[in-house]
Amino acid sequence: MENFIAYNPTELHFGKDIIKELGNAAHALGKKALLVYGKGSVLRNGSYQDTRDQLDKAGINVVEYSGIKPNPLVEDVDNAVTLGLENKVDMVLAVGGGSAIDSAKLIAVCIPEQWSGWDVMKGRRDPVRALPVLAVLTLAATGTEMNSVAVVQNNQRMEKFGYRHPVMFPKHSFLDPSYTCSVPLDHTGFGIVDLVAHVLETYFGQGDASLSDRFAASIIQEAMEFGPQLMEKPEDYTLRARIMLAATTALNGLVSYGRLNGDWTSHALGHQLSLLFDTAHGASLSIVFPAWMKHMKPRIGSRLEKLGEDLFGNPSADHAIEGLESFFKRVLCPVRLKEIGIAPDQNEKILALMNKNKCNGKNPDNHLNDLDREKIVELMYAE
Amino acid sequence: MENFIAYNPTELHFGKDIIKELGNAAHALGKKALLVYGKGSVLRNGSYQDTRDQLDKAGINVVEYSGIKPNPLVEDVDNAVTLGLENKVDMVLAVGGGSAIDSAKLIAVCIPEQWSGWDVMKGRRDPVRALPVLAVLTLAATGTEMNSVAVVQNNQRMEKFGYRHPVMFPKHSFLDPSYTCSVPLDHTGFGIVDLVAHVLETYFGQGDASLSDRFAASIIQEAMEFGPQLMEKPEDYTLRARIMLAATTALNGLVSYGRLNGDWTSHALGHQLSLLFDTAHGASLSIVFPAWMKHMKPRIGSRLEKLGEDLFGNPSADHAIEGLESFFKRVLCPVRLKEIGIAPDQNEKILALMNKNKCNGKNPDNHLNDLDREKIVELMYAE
Repeated sequence: MENFIAYNPTELHFGKDIIKELGNAAHALGKKALLVYGKGSVLRNGSYQDTRDQLDKAGINVVEYSGIKPNPLVEDVDNAVTLGLENKVDMVLAVGGGSAIDSAKLIAVCIPEQWSGWDVMKGRRDPVRALPVLAVLTLAATGTEMNSVAVVQNNQRMEKFGYRHPVMFPKHSFLDPSYTCSVPLDHTGFGIVDLVAHVLETYFGQGDASLSDRFAASIIQEAMEFGPQLMEKPEDYTLRARIMLAATTALNGLVSYGRLNGDWTSHALGHQLSLLFDTAHGASLSIVFPAWMKHMKPRIGSRLEKLGEDLFGNPSADHAIEGLESFFKRVLCPVRLKEIGIAPDQNEKILALMNKNKCNGKNPDNHLNDLDREKIVELMYAE
Repeated sequence: MENFIAYNPTELHFGKDIIKELGNAAHALGKKALLVYGKGSVLRNGSYQDTRDQLDKAGINVVEYSGIKPNPLVEDVDNAVTLGLENKVDMVLAVGGGSAIDSAKLIAVCIPEQWSGWDVMKGRRDPVRALPVLAVLTLAATGTEMNSVAVVQNNQRMEKFGYRHPVMFPKHSFLDPSYTCSVPLDHTGFGIVDLVAHVLETYFGQGDASLSDRFAASIIQEAMEFGPQLMEKPEDYTLRARIMLAATTALNGLVSYGRLNGDWTSHALGHQLSLLFDTAHGASLSIVFPAWMKHMKPRIGSRLEKLGEDLFGNPSADHAIEGLESFFKRVLCPVRLKEIGIAPDQNEKILALMNKNKCNGKNPDNHLNDLDREKIVELMYAE
């Protein structure tokens, strides 16, 4: 087992009508909030209005920045920072999914120091503080509600990646599964794939961590049992709750106890599809992950065999890969590029961007993989 | 699934030589520490000296209170509070197992307000602050290193129970499995039973929490796979690490996500044995828990069946009970009173104290159980 630190100070409020705890939490943190969100869905599912009601009741002044994109852009972060500085806000409150919350985290780091978002993302700054972040989650997927990571993209530079810093843990996150009941089927499936990918990328990290392996299998099994049921009954509160909790635990540190790192190559590869084609994050993963596993089989064979045993009671690497790919299909996610309309003539463009951004990962022995990106792209097109 | 809050701000430092991170952590919290420990074991296993070295290097002044008992007494807490007040300490640092750390938590609450420990334990005070607590753990058992609970006993009043308050989370806990390599076999087994009991008592709580059920089974399976191996190889670092991490996750909140509560009757019943006979905590549990499950079978039958399926692949309540009892024996723990030299003529005395202290619990429906304590004591004597 590797040495590790477990630290996660986020207070997670989970359940029906749990937003009623938001007013008091915000009141303790200041008087003026920058409210960050995307577009219409938070207006339709009630979360925006419930949040405003709570803030009004607590006497919090609100400045709004809306229009955060599903693949969130650093220019929106910078614009929101300007707005927050002009209005001297005390906290940043996101309502939405990963894009709103990730943006809010970066905004909260930039405001106190008047930094640009991209300087922080590129590691050119060394944060020691941030405004407090609160999150009202409306999509079960990224796990950002209980971790210190933000993923933001820069279209000018054609770069998208994650940045992690302990000052970015949300102070409070509010997870009412009801808000996710209206998430469309496609994005429901994308969220399920995203959470499973987070667990797998940690599972393929370095370190003999038997308990984390069990937790990892637990979360994936939860998704495999209840994900397909949810696709049949998308408005079922309990099924939404199970998937929402699974998504949070998939990336809150739990499955990395005893590991040195994870292998986040699939996320890195997937981000290039989002940059080029605005592919939804979860869809990029359901296409990339099987291709990555097939390509990596010679290196991670024994881990794939253990995964097969843990998930399907069959210690076969091929069975594990096929089982996951078939699960992705059951939650209605694409597993090849052609299913999202990307023809083989885009091959070179994809490969060029993956090469430019040096997509790769370490493991299973903490050395950079000798990744054949051309082969992986080929597998993403394969019949 | 029930509404719940997940909150655990403790920073857990886990691994070999991890104590080298203590100096910086303490330095950030003040200049003078009250160092709390029990007797000789922390001198023998090196943890005491390593801690002192770290504090010296960080320039922290140290006042010592030693002699905390394995079943910790509130009078030691009060004496340590007096010492801490006289010396104006900034933090409380425990080196040892649950008894030292639980005492430190209560001391840390009492010092700033000059309260008596028992007033806090009985809920007559309403803490809003505490001195920072640091813990160097040398026994895998109670999980106190990453939760906000303290269990302390009062021999004058013949009472022992747990008290929980969010100000009591340790700021930092340092878990080097090496320090546990010299724990004697009996206490190694007691610790394993203690961790399994924590998971089970949460498992029998109220709430349809499928993911927590999976995490619960994960932790118990970890203990069942590696606990008996550890009894064979007590100096194996990796086995010690697996059991240490299992004990922490057994009571850090993880398995209660989605539950309203747990059913802590077995701990309550076991505490009466510790009060009467100074029985080691883990030994009290390995005796009480099977008796409690047998008595409760009519009420918790479906949960026992699920437990049997989750742990042994056999959905039988009797099989689950027998399986756990036999596991307790495999880690060399007593499962009947006579094995620890308590003869049937003590029956009335035990029952009287259990009745006086109203040992009971709620669940599975959040109503107090209709507990026949006489029957349970009988089962603790049964052949």
